[in-house]
Amino acid sequence: MIAVVDQLRAAAAGSVTEDPAAMEAYRYDQCGFADAGRPLAVVHATSVDDVVATLKIADATATPVVTRGTGTGLAGAANAIDGCIVLSTARLDSILDIDPVARTARVQPGVINGDLDRAAAAHGLWYAPDPGSRDISSIGGNMATNAGGMCCAKYGVTADHALQLTAVLAGGEIIRTGSATRKDVAGLDLTRLLVGSEGTLAVIVEATVRLRPRPAHTATVAATFPTARAAIAAVLAVGDLADPSAVEVMDRTTVAAINAMTQMGLDESAGAVMLIQCDGPGAAAEASACAALATEHGATEVFHTDDPDEGEALMQARRVAYTALERLGTPLLDDVCVAVHRLPDLLDAIEQIAEQFQVTIGTFGHAADGNLHPTIVFDPADADAAARARSAFDAIVRATLALDGTLSGEHGIGVLKAPYLSSQFGEVERALMSRIKAAFDPNGVLNPGKAY
Amino acid sequence: MIAVVDQLRAAAAGSVTEDPAAMEAYRYDQCGFADAGRPLAVVHATSVDDVVATLKIADATATPVVTRGTGTGLAGAANAIDGCIVLSTARLDSILDIDPVARTARVQPGVINGDLDRAAAAHGLWYAPDPGSRDISSIGGNMATNAGGMCCAKYGVTADHALQLTAVLAGGEIIRTGSATRKDVAGLDLTRLLVGSEGTLAVIVEATVRLRPRPAHTATVAATFPTARAAIAAVLAVGDLADPSAVEVMDRTTVAAINAMTQMGLDESAGAVMLIQCDGPGAAAEASACAALATEHGATEVFHTDDPDEGEALMQARRVAYTALERLGTPLLDDVCVAVHRLPDLLDAIEQIAEQFQVTIGTFGHAADGNLHPTIVFDPADADAAARARSAFDAIVRATLALDGTLSGEHGIGVLKAPYLSSQFGEVERALMSRIKAAFDPNGVLNPGKAY
Repeated sequence: MIAVVDQLRAAAAGSVTEDPAAMEAYRYDQCGFADAGRPLAVVHATSVDDVVATLKIADATATPVVTRGTGTGLAGAANAIDGCIVLSTARLDSILDIDPVARTARVQPGVINGDLDRAAAAHGLWYAPDPGSRDISSIGGNMATNAGGMCCAKYGVTADHALQLTAVLAGGEIIRTGSATRKDVAGLDLTRLLVGSEGTLAVIVEATVRLRPRPAHTATVAATFPTARAAIAAVLAVGDLADPSAVEVMDRTTVAAINAMTQMGLDESAGAVMLIQCDGPGAAAEASACAALATEHGATEVFHTDDPDEGEALMQARRVAYTALERLGTPLLDDVCVAVHRLPDLLDAIEQIAEQFQVTIGTFGHAADGNLHPTIVFDPADADAAARARSAFDAIVRATLALDGTLSGEHGIGVLKAPYLSSQFGEVERALMSRIKAAFDPNGVLNPGKAY
Repeated sequence: MIAVVDQLRAAAAGSVTEDPAAMEAYRYDQCGFADAGRPLAVVHATSVDDVVATLKIADATATPVVTRGTGTGLAGAANAIDGCIVLSTARLDSILDIDPVARTARVQPGVINGDLDRAAAAHGLWYAPDPGSRDISSIGGNMATNAGGMCCAKYGVTADHALQLTAVLAGGEIIRTGSATRKDVAGLDLTRLLVGSEGTLAVIVEATVRLRPRPAHTATVAATFPTARAAIAAVLAVGDLADPSAVEVMDRTTVAAINAMTQMGLDESAGAVMLIQCDGPGAAAEASACAALATEHGATEVFHTDDPDEGEALMQARRVAYTALERLGTPLLDDVCVAVHRLPDLLDAIEQIAEQFQVTIGTFGHAADGNLHPTIVFDPADADAAARARSAFDAIVRATLALDGTLSGEHGIGVLKAPYLSSQFGEVERALMSRIKAAFDPNGVLNPGKAY
């Protein structure tokens, strides 16, 4: 039998690498705490034909395929598997079309989220999904993980912006899913099935996404609360009355880390800081109402502004939260999600876990969606500290599930959370998902062991 | 072998009927123009166990099962198949729980949409999905068809409100899908796959749905335009600036029919009437901006009000559109959807089709979603008129597809649109959908021939 790598070369399936040193950077995504195998080869696809040729060879030789975009994932979904082909779609990076009348963009999977947004901005339009990685992550990866971000509270997640996908099945067949329309009930919803499936069902080679009018006005509120519980009470009250484009919280540890890095001078005596951004023609009035609610709910300090630069500076504090926590030690980042009214219980649980395992945990996240990123920081040179960090991570996941939450709000399952799948899903549901997987990929070559 | 009906009785699978006269009402939904077969039996499930028992018998005997709620569907998805079991979930009609803090309701499938909304209203909450049938259609049926309505423009469709489902697979196994959280990327999205699948994948026996705060303010705009094209230009401009909860259009034929029935005195010389409703704290200002845009886009008459009763009276005109057209003859109701900027071309095509086939077509619909209901009215006693009506229906569907539209925005495929599926989907996609179906229902007993 001809070696898989030689078959790939013969099929001219993109640029093929089998040099271990060159492949090293393609073994991992940005999740530092998940195992990765050693690939047989890395294929850089430069056309849809390359993807088709690669998958046909993989399928015929039962070689696993791990598709990756720019490798910014945080759950190891793009981590290599021993003996796999890593299929990179990063060079499929053309914006094929922006239609300002239809308010859609048609892009290849390697297009960077931020580049798409800038191209949309030239037409006064906006690509809303805004994962923290937007300047470095690709649309294909965003689709594969159903990436979130700050603006999901108002505008929804990546899946809510995916109108049509072109994808290649494991056998090399090309499928087109979805519709250019806002509503569509014809057929089974293949688009929603592909988005978030972490490359286990098909390889997305093109996406038509929804663009929105770029919000003309923003107004921003920062409020400090004596306790995280009080901040969440304010978040719930805000949800009754207003529809902000971001509602973020940061705990005391996170605020202190941000201050240490930026000298922003946020109130470190506060139990939690809440940041709210409103947009649209009524932004100023809405922010003002949110500020009043914060005061009513016991905020000790409330600042609001409809100056976009001031607002951006405040939101920037939240954006650097992870980087600031990274300076305290090696971060083990979690991503858990509960119903919003369960957030106080989850925050309490995280505090107890920090105490129990004697670890530092900085928690921040998208409060209006109940989606938190508890970040455990520790010294990896200290084996005991590393073990305690892993135990704390485990305890946070279990506390989330005990509160009827989900394993992941936006980072995905990957390798990191795969061991927990049976704690969230029953055997019947997992078996059903496996049968659905087989409908797309009967030989099971696409990213086995991830996602479901 | 024991007869299927006797097995059903022996299993005490709900109340079982095999009297042809009693079964007649369960052969059809509200789609007047689709064939229906003769069922073997009608089972009225009164418990989840009844559903499980029925499906086990059906699966073991390869008997088709057509699940129905209150039978208000408009595409024949609930129409019986010869020799099938009709499984009615209408008596599973308990609201199991309303959680005002979590803003969720847990309901059985037979609960009427409007009853759920009224129960939510007692807590100041709102079940947003508002199909025209909301006072008579069930949540199970709404889920099965992914029902739309007027408020989808701002608030999304039924699928956007389905958090968790409990459903029974053809083999009798029970699955639980989704999460109580706002964001969830764990596992494959089974919830979105079930919603809109018209009972072909599983039988939904419980749903947890999202409730929203009940909007405190509404403001309403009515504007008349010389042409439908001008009205759509205004719709597009409104979409740039505002986020109304409803943006409806009605053509001249529809307006005349409404006037004839209601003496509302709408301007019949207008080419189209646009109705806009805004809600939330900024409703009045938003409606006022929409009214100004209507004037800018050539509206000959613009009326706006922030009185809720006046607003309701205006929206009522749109709600009675179908009933008003019914008075002109037998209506053959279509449901097609295109990208919003394609609406002028679709409206032109419908006008040409009316002329070509010498039929009366009244068109109204959800303009902000590009979702129209062209309604062909004719005299069924006139065989030639009936044939021309069918030809016009066919031509509208084909014109929609030629404009990159979809077969259905909210009514579904059922029996009515099944013949067109191959015009929208390729062979590869249809084969994939069939394999997904088999993952849920290997023996193909659940509502064969519908949906996909």
